Amino acid sequence: WFCAEYGHGRIPDCQMAAWLMAVFFQGLSKAETVRLTQLMAASGRRLDLRSLDGVTVDKHSTGGVGDTVTLVAGPLIAAAGLIVAKLAGRGLGHTGGTIDKLESIPGFRADLPVEVWLQAAKRVGVAISATLPDLVPLDGRLYALRDATATVDSLPLIAASVMSKKLAVGADCLVLDVKTGLGAFLPDRARAAALAALMVELGRASGIKVSALLTSMDQPLGGSAGNSLEVAGAIRALQGEGAPDLTELSLAVAAEAYLLAGLDGGLEQAYARARRLLAGGEALVRFQRMVEAQGGDPRVIDDPRRLPTARCSEPLVTLAGGTVASLDAKGVGLAAIALGAGRRHMGETIDPAAGIEFRAKVGDRVAAGEALAILHHAGGAGVGEARRLLSAAYSISESDRPVAACAQLVTRVEA
Amino acid sequence: WFCAEYGHGRIPDCQMAAWLMAVFFQGLSKAETVRLTQLMAASGRRLDLRSLDGVTVDKHSTGGVGDTVTLVAGPLIAAAGLIVAKLAGRGLGHTGGTIDKLESIPGFRADLPVEVWLQAAKRVGVAISATLPDLVPLDGRLYALRDATATVDSLPLIAASVMSKKLAVGADCLVLDVKTGLGAFLPDRARAAALAALMVELGRASGIKVSALLTSMDQPLGGSAGNSLEVAGAIRALQGEGAPDLTELSLAVAAEAYLLAGLDGGLEQAYARARRLLAGGEALVRFQRMVEAQGGDPRVIDDPRRLPTARCSEPLVTLAGGTVASLDAKGVGLAAIALGAGRRHMGETIDPAAGIEFRAKVGDRVAAGEALAILHHAGGAGVGEARRLLSAAYSISESDRPVAACAQLVTRVEA
Repeated sequence: WFCAEYGHGRIPDCQMAAWLMAVFFQGLSKAETVRLTQLMAASGRRLDLRSLDGVTVDKHSTGGVGDTVTLVAGPLIAAAGLIVAKLAGRGLGHTGGTIDKLESIPGFRADLPVEVWLQAAKRVGVAISATLPDLVPLDGRLYALRDATATVDSLPLIAASVMSKKLAVGADCLVLDVKTGLGAFLPDRARAAALAALMVELGRASGIKVSALLTSMDQPLGGSAGNSLEVAGAIRALQGEGAPDLTELSLAVAAEAYLLAGLDGGLEQAYARARRLLAGGEALVRFQRMVEAQGGDPRVIDDPRRLPTARCSEPLVTLAGGTVASLDAKGVGLAAIALGAGRRHMGETIDPAAGIEFRAKVGDRVAAGEALAILHHAGGAGVGEARRLLSAAYSISESDRPVAACAQLVTRVEA
Repeated sequence: WFCAEYGHGRIPDCQMAAWLMAVFFQGLSKAETVRLTQLMAASGRRLDLRSLDGVTVDKHSTGGVGDTVTLVAGPLIAAAGLIVAKLAGRGLGHTGGTIDKLESIPGFRADLPVEVWLQAAKRVGVAISATLPDLVPLDGRLYALRDATATVDSLPLIAASVMSKKLAVGADCLVLDVKTGLGAFLPDRARAAALAALMVELGRASGIKVSALLTSMDQPLGGSAGNSLEVAGAIRALQGEGAPDLTELSLAVAAEAYLLAGLDGGLEQAYARARRLLAGGEALVRFQRMVEAQGGDPRVIDDPRRLPTARCSEPLVTLAGGTVASLDAKGVGLAAIALGAGRRHMGETIDPAAGIEFRAKVGDRVAAGEALAILHHAGGAGVGEARRLLSAAYSISESDRPVAACAQLVTRVEA
């Protein structure tokens, strides 16, 4: 009642702010979280994906650096005959956003009218559009209050925010990629696992098929952080030549989607299908057709130089030889912002070509004087800060001993 | 910083509301509560009682039914040569307010200009005025937010609210009467004791001499609930013929004041002084002079029929004989409101003559057909409700066994 009345403007912000703080400390029961999520989902427009005549799949990541999985897994899922009609966001803070990445492709439009976007999804199997302003308006209001009252970091409120938007879109199946580690919104692994389990329960309680992966964001994913750089990295992955971690996680997400949709009886079979569709080039074709359907230049697939290129590129060189012991994803994300690739505040313009290419990641051996990374930018005041941040993000172990293995990249969450 | 900025209007209500809820669940440290209290005290006007040329004493009750102790203890304290320049409030909800009681005396003015009120206190030794609107304005704003966000019931916030007003008045000595039991704001004895100890600490941290009494509000205090009825009860107590519990508590408050002011070396000596000043009529003289100094008709002391009298008075008769096992103070207070003696909301007008006279209190034996109480009112819709509430407030034990003794009326709090 309280949240519904707030949604109707009959409860003032000060009372909702106090309620949010009460939830921050006291939590919500499962049943309360389910009700809140459903009420939020019903607060605005709801899509009807039944017109797409197929099994629809949605995917969500809690946000990371270099996380361009959607651009690889989306086409992989479409290549299996499923339909990915996905709404995505822009980057904020140290994490990137899928829409910013796609918009770095010349001509690409992420603001198609809903019917046009859904038609593209039906025709191609995958189409990705920017979040609609009238989808779950209550989430926007609650988020602004949480931001102002230091109550963002509450598992039931995070879960309700994510899942209400997923319910409003209404896909049949949903794969959640919950990040954990240094560069994740929830660095603590146990809390990330609890969030994943809660979101799975919320989805199931509302009749959608959900599974969740807990994935490491200690170091950035893939070979780069920055919009056009990540699109190029996604294309390489779809060509079978991608960074191993980006490819591994994309296959994992696709395999989960196949299992949820009932295409395969077991995980091994689902992985085999994903690997086959990647190797056969079917996923790459879906990506190219999506770019074309959304107004982008499809020639970028064969000629990545058609993507925006930064005016300057310069190496970050290590003075000491050794082994990369860690690469702090959050530091990398902040360095990318300093180069112009991301936003500190909503509404800031970004440079689609700016970013960081990794020449060395955790476990790689480097010699003194070798480049750890290449910084791409258009010059400007932020470059010095970016170099400082990126230097601090790299930690080089000078001993000859191999560094401790990274945390496992992908863990399935059993809810 | 946060509270100071809120005081200056640079933090919005929604953030303060969230902070209040955080305090509700997480509490405040002693040091934080001291800082908040002092900051609140400094948010508006501060009085300077040094011009009164004497040791000043303040007294505070957390609110009760029939609690007219201020009208007895104030003159008793003044009779010992100390100065009581007290600000008091109006009644709200089931508890009464000292200003409403005094204003039932024909001509009495509780809204004297500050200088006139302080001159009266200096001349008579006791003067009681209504709380000033510019005293601790931050408390008013915080209280309104607490009321709207269900965060009133927080010990550090209650303590800071009470003590900031006491610090702004700035008396040398302060006696706190913290009520506990069914009719008290804090029914739980342990919580009431914790509040009392916290308020003593806050006062001492700011350089005033404070002591606290924990007193029972299971049943109403004194012989009546209602404004002119309670004034008559206070006059009888000052004449040495008061209700035993009202007299006992008033002596206890006065004795604490004497100890704080250093008049007496021990509690026994202080009690002896209080009993002597009461028996000798000095306190009654002070009361009469206060009434006169504040524009009231001093003849009410010798002729209580000059106080407002209700048009109707009717008994509440018990059908069953036995012993009064309990008399719920809160129920009595609500019955008094229904008769017109109190307010449900701020700003409502009250009937100074309305109220309830007790013919039987806890432990008294009553015969079937005997009056438990007399209801005084001007007729009207609330009388039936008042009868129902008052009937429910009385519990008669039909057995011949004596009822369990009441909780001890007065307990000194050692902080």
